[in-house]
Amino acid sequence: MLGKYIEEVRNNTPLVHNITNYVTVNDVANVLLACGGSPIMSDEPEDVEDITSICQGLNINIGTLNKRTIESMFIAGKRANKLGHMVLLDPVGAGASTLRTNTAVELMKKIKFNAIRGNISEIKTLAYGSGTTKGVDADVADAVTEENLENSIKFIKEFAKKSETIIAITGAIDLVSDGKRCFVIRNGRPEMGKITGTGCQLSGMMTAFLVANPNEQLEAAAAAVCTMGLAGEIGWSYMKEGDGNSTYRNRIIDAIYNMDKETLDKGAKYEIR
Amino acid sequence: MLGKYIEEVRNNTPLVHNITNYVTVNDVANVLLACGGSPIMSDEPEDVEDITSICQGLNINIGTLNKRTIESMFIAGKRANKLGHMVLLDPVGAGASTLRTNTAVELMKKIKFNAIRGNISEIKTLAYGSGTTKGVDADVADAVTEENLENSIKFIKEFAKKSETIIAITGAIDLVSDGKRCFVIRNGRPEMGKITGTGCQLSGMMTAFLVANPNEQLEAAAAAVCTMGLAGEIGWSYMKEGDGNSTYRNRIIDAIYNMDKETLDKGAKYEIR
Amino acid sequence: MLGKYIEEVRNNTPLVHNITNYVTVNDVANVLLACGGSPIMSDEPEDVEDITSICQGLNINIGTLNKRTIESMFIAGKRANKLGHMVLLDPVGAGASTLRTNTAVELMKKIKFNAIRGNISEIKTLAYGSGTTKGVDADVADAVTEENLENSIKFIKEFAKKSETIIAITGAIDLVSDGKRCFVIRNGRPEMGKITGTGCQLSGMMTAFLVANPNEQLEAAAAAVCTMGLAGEIGWSYMKEGDGNSTYRNRIIDAIYNMDKETLDKGAKYEIR
Repeated sequence: MLGKYIEEVRNNTPLVHNITNYVTVNDVANVLLACGGSPIMSDEPEDVEDITSICQGLNINIGTLNKRTIESMFIAGKRANKLGHMVLLDPVGAGASTLRTNTAVELMKKIKFNAIRGNISEIKTLAYGSGTTKGVDADVADAVTEENLENSIKFIKEFAKKSETIIAITGAIDLVSDGKRCFVIRNGRPEMGKITGTGCQLSGMMTAFLVANPNEQLEAAAAAVCTMGLAGEIGWSYMKEGDGNSTYRNRIIDAIYNMDKETLDKGAKYEIR
Repeated sequence: MLGKYIEEVRNNTPLVHNITNYVTVNDVANVLLACGGSPIMSDEPEDVEDITSICQGLNINIGTLNKRTIESMFIAGKRANKLGHMVLLDPVGAGASTLRTNTAVELMKKIKFNAIRGNISEIKTLAYGSGTTKGVDADVADAVTEENLENSIKFIKEFAKKSETIIAITGAIDLVSDGKRCFVIRNGRPEMGKITGTGCQLSGMMTAFLVANPNEQLEAAAAAVCTMGLAGEIGWSYMKEGDGNSTYRNRIIDAIYNMDKETLDKGAKYEIR
Repeated sequence: MLGKYIEEVRNNTPLVHNITNYVTVNDVANVLLACGGSPIMSDEPEDVEDITSICQGLNINIGTLNKRTIESMFIAGKRANKLGHMVLLDPVGAGASTLRTNTAVELMKKIKFNAIRGNISEIKTLAYGSGTTKGVDADVADAVTEENLENSIKFIKEFAKKSETIIAITGAIDLVSDGKRCFVIRNGRPEMGKITGTGCQLSGMMTAFLVANPNEQLEAAAAAVCTMGLAGEIGWSYMKEGDGNSTYRNRIIDAIYNMDKETLDKGAKYEIR
């Protein structure tokens, strides 16, 4: 029963510092507000230590990284580690460029992350040092399916154990593991792939869930994934003739805004392996 | 009767140069278009003098400041001052970091602002040199309430007089003062706090109102505040089952788009103290 | 019959690298997804060669240019040229500042563009070296009208021939020419001017259309223009009481998402001159 984890977000209003891309940043902010958190964005090296210090969580997303913001990621990450804050990495496009892959790998070496959330191609890149990322979307050849589920679970558990971090791989089937257990989640809709940034939004929200539930981090991360997927299902149910991906984007955020314990308890579709 | 001030915006289509954060910039642009203005964004030191020169107003927002854009703020501000343009400061997160506080204070020293709009914590930081800003949201302990209204009015009048600028403090109760008079405004809804950037949007819109009404700047600034709050009320009246903060964001901008003289005249709730 | 060109976009899912402004970037991404493409954004000099190499098209938009992103535009453009990718230029604000004008002119010298899309003032600036751009919007004095249509067609044909590029001038009447033929397009609605970034969105979408239809580039570019204008008409037909420019923005993207061959075949209003 994962509903209580969103309740804790609403009770605690976690303040989350985001160093994130300028493509989806507005949606990340509105999703953080929708789930009960509070967002702040800052990516200047001289600003990030102060800002992250007044927050409880840090969400690092490399979607439109540049040299200045990369420097800020390391500065903020180290400070957040020192203060014992929750820190999450979203390795957008790892595998698509040397800079992205190296930055993500280097961040994993220097910063202790509580969770890393990406698509299967990005996570495989981090695990194996190279990947087949097709831009910022996962390569179909990599996708987690019912057919390769056993092997995918084995892969994520091993990588989570080795990296000592919760790993979340999102796609048609979502996997969330801490190395021991693996949540296999079947919420969501394929049309969510037609909206830019649902992954980025989830990373921001997951950071808030981790902050609000520090003693059950795996469950909290899984609850965030279920919330996003279930919001995709609920949002879809409000779609009318003529609606498309732009209205769907609003509908999903609206559904997160209206998500309560009972709805999440009932709607979350997961098994633990 | 504040309706005529938005009419003047629609009659004059003020071109507003925005140096603003990348979180809410799209909404700021759409709000400027909604109220009858025209937005242009530019934050490169080599570009801002030219751009601000062809505009009539400048909106400086430090929400995601960095060293490059800070330099641009000073360059553009000086040029705008020289040309007699309306200039507004939105000190996002002043009090939350040394860089933000110092930048806002330094801007106030070097640039003549027609108006400064922020939440109570940000404005207190500028007035007292330190604050209790909780991220980019006001600290509850600072909030303007019916109980402390007298003292809050006294505070804003003194600070407006001292800084020779119109000060706008927005929150549950909004205050706008030029040091002599203070508009106390009771439009708006608490749910507006669940949308990122309503403050940034208001700052952009206020700049357009000032440009279009140069001889009644206090009234123009107050009219912008009333427009935003009233749009929050009207937008809310269109909300349906399943709607949340993302749809509400659209509804508010839509309500600004549809705001006319009569609606604003009727709906503005203010007293002058 | 232009419907088949959007069908090719949906069949090929062209991956488009965008170096674009932070004002409208989210809408550009969602429009690319809506029409059947896939967006990736990257603007760091050390990142853009890798990113553009895995794409099939490059969309360069100078809306919020800075020195770092200008460098990236040249690096990515040269690489894209080398790889034979489709490359498009959106010269936002050319004529409004020396930096913008010079950057656009220099890009045209160093990079081979398949298409350049702008408003009439921006394109006149590129053609004559100076313009009367009013901010990022076209000057009314420049507008293409039924009265000056003959001369406008002559102008665009000459400039397209001279620059060896498809030129698209969008406004109340849209013109798209390769120097020999000129599509005169009468889709769209005036209210589209009250939304920020419909031009930027069109540039992103046009890049995807060019990638998917490399052997009929003029038709593909014209089909993208018709798609945008027709989406503006269809989106408007869904507008209800209380709706404004923010909802209209969503409705237009939704209409692109739902656009199919038949709808575009029927709704495209153009003549070839």
